[in-house]
Amino acid sequence: MRSLAKALLGRRLANREGEERRIGAFEGVPAMGLDGLGSSSYGPEAALTILAAAGTAGLAALGPIIAAIVALLAILYFSYRQTIAAYPTNGGAFTVARETFGAGASLLAAAALMIDYVLNVAVGISAGVGALTSAVPSLQPQTLPLCLGILALLTLINLRGTLDAGRAFALPTYLFLASFALLLGLGLYRLLATGEVAPVVAPPPPRPASEPLGWWLVLHAFASGCTAMTGVEAVSNGMGAFRDPAVRHGRRTLLAICGALGLLLIGIATLATAYGIGAMDQTQPGYRSVLSQLAAAVLGHGWLYYTAIGSLLCVLALSADTSFTAFPRLCRSVAQDGYLPRAFAVAGRRLVFSAGILYLAATAALLLILFGGITEHLIPLFAIGAFLTFTISQAGMVVHWRRLDATAATRRHRLPLLVNAAGALATGIAFCVILVAKFSEGAWITLLAVPATIAGLLLVRRYYDRVAAQERAAGPLRLAQRSPPVVIIAMAGRSRMADEALRFALDLSPDVVAVHLTALEGGEDPDRAAALRESWRHDVEDPAARAGLTPPRLVVLPATYRRAEEPLLKLIGELRPKMPGRRVAILIPELVKRRWYQHLLHTHRARRLRRRLLAHADPEIVIIIIPWAGD
Amino acid sequence: MRSLAKALLGRRLANREGEERRIGAFEGVPAMGLDGLGSSSYGPEAALTILAAAGTAGLAALGPIIAAIVALLAILYFSYRQTIAAYPTNGGAFTVARETFGAGASLLAAAALMIDYVLNVAVGISAGVGALTSAVPSLQPQTLPLCLGILALLTLINLRGTLDAGRAFALPTYLFLASFALLLGLGLYRLLATGEVAPVVAPPPPRPASEPLGWWLVLHAFASGCTAMTGVEAVSNGMGAFRDPAVRHGRRTLLAICGALGLLLIGIATLATAYGIGAMDQTQPGYRSVLSQLAAAVLGHGWLYYTAIGSLLCVLALSADTSFTAFPRLCRSVAQDGYLPRAFAVAGRRLVFSAGILYLAATAALLLILFGGITEHLIPLFAIGAFLTFTISQAGMVVHWRRLDATAATRRHRLPLLVNAAGALATGIAFCVILVAKFSEGAWITLLAVPATIAGLLLVRRYYDRVAAQERAAGPLRLAQRSPPVVIIAMAGRSRMADEALRFALDLSPDVVAVHLTALEGGEDPDRAAALRESWRHDVEDPAARAGLTPPRLVVLPATYRRAEEPLLKLIGELRPKMPGRRVAILIPELVKRRWYQHLLHTHRARRLRRRLLAHADPEIVIIIIPWAGD
Repeated sequence: MRSLAKALLGRRLANREGEERRIGAFEGVPAMGLDGLGSSSYGPEAALTILAAAGTAGLAALGPIIAAIVALLAILYFSYRQTIAAYPTNGGAFTVARETFGAGASLLAAAALMIDYVLNVAVGISAGVGALTSAVPSLQPQTLPLCLGILALLTLINLRGTLDAGRAFALPTYLFLASFALLLGLGLYRLLATGEVAPVVAPPPPRPASEPLGWWLVLHAFASGCTAMTGVEAVSNGMGAFRDPAVRHGRRTLLAICGALGLLLIGIATLATAYGIGAMDQTQPGYRSVLSQLAAAVLGHGWLYYTAIGSLLCVLALSADTSFTAFPRLCRSVAQDGYLPRAFAVAGRRLVFSAGILYLAATAALLLILFGGITEHLIPLFAIGAFLTFTISQAGMVVHWRRLDATAATRRHRLPLLVNAAGALATGIAFCVILVAKFSEGAWITLLAVPATIAGLLLVRRYYDRVAAQERAAGPLRLAQRSPPVVIIAMAGRSRMADEALRFALDLSPDVVAVHLTALEGGEDPDRAAALRESWRHDVEDPAARAGLTPPRLVVLPATYRRAEEPLLKLIGELRPKMPGRRVAILIPELVKRRWYQHLLHTHRARRLRRRLLAHADPEIVIIIIPWAGD
Repeated sequence: MRSLAKALLGRRLANREGEERRIGAFEGVPAMGLDGLGSSSYGPEAALTILAAAGTAGLAALGPIIAAIVALLAILYFSYRQTIAAYPTNGGAFTVARETFGAGASLLAAAALMIDYVLNVAVGISAGVGALTSAVPSLQPQTLPLCLGILALLTLINLRGTLDAGRAFALPTYLFLASFALLLGLGLYRLLATGEVAPVVAPPPPRPASEPLGWWLVLHAFASGCTAMTGVEAVSNGMGAFRDPAVRHGRRTLLAICGALGLLLIGIATLATAYGIGAMDQTQPGYRSVLSQLAAAVLGHGWLYYTAIGSLLCVLALSADTSFTAFPRLCRSVAQDGYLPRAFAVAGRRLVFSAGILYLAATAALLLILFGGITEHLIPLFAIGAFLTFTISQAGMVVHWRRLDATAATRRHRLPLLVNAAGALATGIAFCVILVAKFSEGAWITLLAVPATIAGLLLVRRYYDRVAAQERAAGPLRLAQRSPPVVIIAMAGRSRMADEALRFALDLSPDVVAVHLTALEGGEDPDRAAALRESWRHDVEDPAARAGLTPPRLVVLPATYRRAEEPLLKLIGELRPKMPGRRVAILIPELVKRRWYQHLLHTHRARRLRRRLLAHADPEIVIIIIPWAGD
């Protein structure tokens, strides 16, 4: 077991190794950016799918919509740049909101983000696998196993640590960036330098318009395109992963992700408009994604095309990795405040928060299995949480700057305040647009899930508060008069194990009672008890008396129900009134089973007795175990 | 959990209730006789299947063969009647052989019987289900689930106790006996009184002869027919189940089983010969068993026919019950001698040996699943074990009587000796015939399985002997100079739980070390440790000094690997050389989790620490648990 864990996860890391395990921007982009970069493929596609209803007029609207999205992205970049600097150890919306608005807003942000991250894993993986199976249709029946396989891979690599994940996913990430830089650069060069717009492989003609291009359609397309921006907040949640100087590494990572995403969006929108590439109907055979049409239009069907599309597939399938980096760190902050189980705040074997990783994997696996690996219907639920958090986080930063200004009595933070205010306003409006546009498609489910999650978080906190109140020890230690415990030994007869127990008991207390239980196996065994009684005086009482100790008493009790617990607890009940104020210690010699067959060959009475006494949960009845494994 | 067990198995019985749970002959016949009675159907059928090769000449040989079998049965009856009286608490071959021939022969008998009992469960159930599915062919695809369902039913009822099983199966047993008494009586009456041999429904004509009726064929048919006698020894193994006077109840049960079986065999043989009923080919469609043909010949296809055949089906399907009565009691005897795990000798919740019942069910289920519920190929393996045990048991009784005569200096036991000698000789010859006749069909597997089983039994015994030698405490208790242990408390900080531990530690010893571990969650928490240090003097050391106690020392240790075990074991390693000859007691305050959500909301550090220290298995490092469940 232990060597298997070592092979899969690597050796257990010491706390002091934490610093070496932190990441820079090179690993930061794969570890936190895959969601953002991958969404460059489905953001424009989602917008074009809505716009397709308006035919060529719709296609013409893509430019302005993407421009608005990129502008929003720019505002977000500058906003988060400031947030990171202001909260360099943990700049997530949960922390910002707690510091500025208090617990309520922080829980709202935490719940929205937690739901979004879980959805992102399920949707990201199934979208990646969907793209793969549409490229290789023979893999279609294996959809769910493929999804779960990728999930298992992500889980395992992330359990090894964020550094390992960042390194493992660097190749597909940078290959994707390089090939799309080449693709878009080539296309834009041809377009701008030569004015040539003849595609190498022509895209299919656009579908005919079925409705005019109205405001509602544009807003809806904008809301759908905004999914391209989810994942941008991941850097702020994952600040704990960066090595010193964390702010610089974090800002670089954020710049790389936002910059690349912005350029990708601009390039895609320009070329799609120029080549007249529209969204095809996914439910029809022969479907090809916008980026696939675009790559074919620029590159034809050569190896470069396959490299670009292959690396895109990888990025899509691995986009869930962003959740694996940000979610556990978010949960840690929430758990440190007592709203999630404490296990979420404990750094695991590899100094990452394993409980969060495993919980994320388990919930995502559940979603994937429930929906058979096809989670398109979950997409509308998505992005709402992200934009809600954007808004809360930016608004919190506005309060943050105002407070700083209020205490410093100057207005040094005027510009940052304006940037964050602009961010809050823009993302707030976007949030309202998305909510309205997607409400009937399923966004209302998120609106129900968020309060339910908050209720859960509050229940956890209430439990911890109650326990803390119960356990609190105030003031000096109270000490009553000192008296040794009454020691009861459960023994099957004289043996080296039992002798060890007797010696220890005599060290502890002058009141030792050895209990021999008869009929534990159901049958009568009067000889054995009689023989034990016989030898007790010579072999135990006399030596104890000679050593100046009070001799231990032997009590023979029948185990009416072949269980040791009942007669022992009954005996304790009889002893306690006679010895008020004294604890009872039950001494159990326990044979430690080191080999599998020992579990079959020995009864488990000692363990059962220990469990039952533990479950009895009386601090006045103490359990003492003397482990014994033979020679 | 506990209420489910109660609903399924009934309440836990006290040892004193054992007497009321014992059975008489009325329950004894269903509990121990179903195997024997059921085999009346397949014994003659097996003989006729062999004889079919010789055509009508073969059918004529059935009478003498069945006569020989009935004669053997009579000898067995008288032999076992004596054995029961000689060993009234446990007359099984294992006990008899141990008392007379010693351990080797007893293990041979035990191994042969154990294998036979397991086979009997698998073969009995699958034969019963086979008969059912040949009557209702639509059930064919459900063969395995039906087999496992019946196995589960038998297991459950037997776990409730032999009395419950005997009562539950009384109805089909006595219905079977009554209807076949009527059937055979009516047939014989017609045959003898009126000489009429015209069947109501005519059996199919016999198959043509393919070889002459030689000695080998007759011996082979005899060997196959002898399967009718398996299960006769069950009464001797199950003697512990009878209420006082056990010998009388046992003898009555044995008489009922052997008498009924003998009469059934005689009646079947006579009528089958008279009506010219032969065995049909089971692999051909339209197959009907010998008893089905016989019942139709006597009764036609009325309700009486269906009653007889229906009760026969029940008896066949439940014939495994005999194993469930005898096997656990055999295993108990073997376990009491140390050749099987001790759990087999422990009377369970309902005063039956649950471990044996569960083991039997598990092995039989494994066989059924491996063979898909069709275990015909196991039939040749069968009966060998039974006849080997018959022979050993009877031969042992011969030695028993000779010993009694030798001590008494008279020859009072001449007649019993002759009866058992005849039994040993007859069953010994039958054993050789069966072994030779069935060797190539698979009997050799039994010859391999028996020594393998014996080897396993010997290994178990060797282990227990080694443990006993290690654990044996001889002579008076050795006591060194008395000194209290060094007590180490693992504590997260001051709390009511930790205060309880401190008070108890101060009761035990003047040397108390409280260990506070930092960085257990991975992050640094210097404030907490500093605060604890600060308050330790005022809140713990001073009160202890005022109470006249040595103040407990506070040690702050970093948990480098976020585990409590390593730093604690290291500390113990450092302390022990300074305090030679003194034990170390690690005091763990453990929060008892009473509700499911507590398992999620608390880390399991106390439990893990306890487990690791137990696995360390050093009797000088004692583990003390103070259970705590809040208010």
